[in-house]
Amino acid sequence: MKFVATLALAAAALTLGASASAQSFQKPEDAIKYRQGAFRVMAAHFGALGAMANNRAPFDAQAAARHGDVIAMVSHLPFAGFGAGTDKGETRAKPEIWSENAKFTSAAQRMQSEVGKLAAAAKTGNLDNLKAAFGPAANSCKACHDDFRKE
Amino acid sequence: MKFVATLALAAAALTLGASASAQSFQKPEDAIKYRQGAFRVMAAHFGALGAMANNRAPFDAQAAARHGDVIAMVSHLPFAGFGAGTDKGETRAKPEIWSENAKFTSAAQRMQSEVGKLAAAAKTGNLDNLKAAFGPAANSCKACHDDFRKE
Repeated sequence: MKFVATLALAAAALTLGASASAQSFQKPEDAIKYRQGAFRVMAAHFGALGAMANNRAPFDAQAAARHGDVIAMVSHLPFAGFGAGTDKGETRAKPEIWSENAKFTSAAQRMQSEVGKLAAAAKTGNLDNLKAAFGPAANSCKACHDDFRKE
Repeated sequence: MKFVATLALAAAALTLGASASAQSFQKPEDAIKYRQGAFRVMAAHFGALGAMANNRAPFDAQAAARHGDVIAMVSHLPFAGFGAGTDKGETRAKPEIWSENAKFTSAAQRMQSEVGKLAAAAKTGNLDNLKAAFGPAANSCKACHDDFRKE
């Protein structure tokens, strides 16, 4: 028996301007690896922006704008990978993702909103704007990790 | 000793309009997981488009356009993860990526070009256009896998 999940993305794709999409997975592992891949891409670009925001790397306005765009776009992807049956396997996802799904969705939307603001700030070419937006965005990631991701 | 690689992306980011960017990784494993994550995201959206192109899923013009945009944007990301020292570990990357790097870069650029055309075709809202662009894009993926990825 094949596992096939087709899930609508919860929120509009701010960067690309599309309002919704769908993603199918043949196996739960595919969905898990997909969401992990998307989070990993986000984390790498988020780390690069954080290095600039925290003066660990020189501010590069063009690179910052691009990192912001990647983060904002990819922030809408991983949630398609949390369908039914994807709570088991090689994953740090807590059961609360499914048992408290409204709260999880809300946390995801808060993150998407904050990284959208971060992307906009990164595009201003002003390091102070980037610094101001980075903290709230990082906090929105951490809040969701604290509640919904195992150590 | 920390591994720190900062790599310029080889090609312009067609979708986002930025000409270059940089990505840093603390450890080779981070770079490997980053590139694998990006390829996995691409593959999932490519598979969704392929299902439409091959009549295995109903054509959804809005979803197709979005899948195309995700693929085109993400197609520019993984190559930052092939820096020096990332040839070992949990990877199927062949040594030819580094020993024949010009050929690898050329194959990557061909893929980026083809998926750019695929994204444009997906935006026309016409399934025949999607079908026409899908084959060349799939072939550009396969060509690189054949030469540069272990079984």
